[in-house]
Amino acid sequence: MGLYEDTRARVTAVDASLRPAIQAHLDDLTKPRGSLGVLEDLAAAYCLATGSATPAMGEKRICTFAGDHGVADEGVSAYPKEVTPQMVMNMLSGGAAVNVLSKHVGADLRVIDMGVAADLPAGGGLVDRKVKAGTNNIAAGPAMTIDEATRALEAGIALATEARADGVTIVGTGDMGIANTTPSSALFAALLPCEVEDITGRGTGIDDATLKHKTDVIRKALTVNAAAMSDPLSTLAAVGGLEIAGIAGLALGGAAEKMLVIVDGFISSAGALVACRMKPEVADYLVFSHMSAEAGHRKFFEAFGARPVLDLGMRLGEGTGAALAMSLVEAAVALYNGMATFSSAGVSDKE
Amino acid sequence: MGLYEDTRARVTAVDASLRPAIQAHLDDLTKPRGSLGVLEDLAAAYCLATGSATPAMGEKRICTFAGDHGVADEGVSAYPKEVTPQMVMNMLSGGAAVNVLSKHVGADLRVIDMGVAADLPAGGGLVDRKVKAGTNNIAAGPAMTIDEATRALEAGIALATEARADGVTIVGTGDMGIANTTPSSALFAALLPCEVEDITGRGTGIDDATLKHKTDVIRKALTVNAAAMSDPLSTLAAVGGLEIAGIAGLALGGAAEKMLVIVDGFISSAGALVACRMKPEVADYLVFSHMSAEAGHRKFFEAFGARPVLDLGMRLGEGTGAALAMSLVEAAVALYNGMATFSSAGVSDKE
Repeated sequence: MGLYEDTRARVTAVDASLRPAIQAHLDDLTKPRGSLGVLEDLAAAYCLATGSATPAMGEKRICTFAGDHGVADEGVSAYPKEVTPQMVMNMLSGGAAVNVLSKHVGADLRVIDMGVAADLPAGGGLVDRKVKAGTNNIAAGPAMTIDEATRALEAGIALATEARADGVTIVGTGDMGIANTTPSSALFAALLPCEVEDITGRGTGIDDATLKHKTDVIRKALTVNAAAMSDPLSTLAAVGGLEIAGIAGLALGGAAEKMLVIVDGFISSAGALVACRMKPEVADYLVFSHMSAEAGHRKFFEAFGARPVLDLGMRLGEGTGAALAMSLVEAAVALYNGMATFSSAGVSDKE
Repeated sequence: MGLYEDTRARVTAVDASLRPAIQAHLDDLTKPRGSLGVLEDLAAAYCLATGSATPAMGEKRICTFAGDHGVADEGVSAYPKEVTPQMVMNMLSGGAAVNVLSKHVGADLRVIDMGVAADLPAGGGLVDRKVKAGTNNIAAGPAMTIDEATRALEAGIALATEARADGVTIVGTGDMGIANTTPSSALFAALLPCEVEDITGRGTGIDDATLKHKTDVIRKALTVNAAAMSDPLSTLAAVGGLEIAGIAGLALGGAAEKMLVIVDGFISSAGALVACRMKPEVADYLVFSHMSAEAGHRKFFEAFGARPVLDLGMRLGEGTGAALAMSLVEAAVALYNGMATFSSAGVSDKE
């Protein structure tokens, strides 16, 4: 078995037998039961993912995967393709939003070149996992071969394993890739019960005519690649992206390593969805950070049956939403571990 | 003029002429315009409150005001009255949720005794501003005299002035006081266009019969005190609370000192509303941290015309929501100050 199949096999559902002890502890904290709302859910999710009712907090890391997309040539994005390498360089020099937010929440940031269509300077902190210089145009055929998709996926898995070895217990996903809402919407349409027009939005800000064109391009991609999409891996290869494959690998690997995986926004949700279709138990290890302002994201949550933590009208990707939600998870674990209990503090419980 | 009137006079609207420079800077950051959503709004709010398009980040502080309520004798809460001093002691020893969250976000926490109906030990960090040992029962008459309400309000104002002198630029509100959703709902009903039943909820977790009783008690309080409520101050005195008056004072004083005031949940919103009715320009300096799970809070936002930053199903008070939102404001200011611009980073803008 290769790393992908091996990792898939290693993912197991969380240990539900821990739930009563976790709930009992949450209810013993000096507050009315349930009054910390989602923070209690996040604390429980962390306990379950890491497999302990007395959880220890580890390191936090965000992995931001970058890749280019052949479908950008169809004119589906408001920004030119050269922005992908420019933004990667911006991340390496610390000037992107994800740099500021990672620092704000105390998370380590890794920027991974999965398939940027430009030569990027070695060093400077870039993690080089380039599979190829951008995907092929999905409107004309598959984005990648199965072998390329597997290599990209396994690069993500390896980053999860490496993170675990470094003491990371919460890993966040992020993306950078001009035109990458297009393959994400294509993946949603292929893997969810939803219509292309409901899951396709304006990305970084396209006009009505371009949105119509983008929707047509996605429909064409799904038609052209219909025969090639027989399982989650081949669907990823057909209409996905290299950075999306990296994200899927990180989610799969994170679940195998029993870390909590914080899923960023629209593109990361596509990667996480692929991982869940590969192995449904991956969902136990995921926290969806935020509702993106990208129109189709709400539809994803409805169709997939999940709820995001935050709704801040963000639509940037990069891991920015993951960073913010990661800090809330850390707060939740701190509450779980740091608050006094009714008995210890001499506080009267509800009458 | 006393401190209250003097402070009221000092509050001015924010300088709207700063808006174009703030927006131009936000639009020059290396991201699609508006893609940071609410974080962009928060950065702008901080700039406007502190009066600068090149804002400096100062210290962060949460002031948690504690007080007891005579109306607790009507049996409107799920918890006994002795929980107020017990929870104040819990806060002083670091075991309450607000302690953990203040620490998590790097904010200083001040716990202020505005009117706890128990003798609390001096020292241990408690800020003693006790006006009296709990309010009178609002179902039978006014909670406080005008003089008592003014003293409580001015204690909050003085804490804002002290915070500013200590370099604080973001101040959060918090509350502790068994039964204090009752006077809060009474204040909302008196000061907003809304019905008592729409603004009254289950607080820490009362059953249907107690909720019905609580609603009746609030109606009675509004009837009994109708003649006494001629302006915001007399309304606060009639149906408010000592900790709510402290919160109102902190909001008023915070606005006068040009700080950004982060309003916690349901009780803090009542205090902030009083401050806004005293001087409408206070609203320019407020950020509402979160939508409480307390039923009436949504009605407050509708009737007042504001939107909270977070919606995490929390209903604890103490300043817990303020702490979390404060961290988002700090993140927003860090983005504003720390991200690269399109020109400086050599990133291509939208085509």
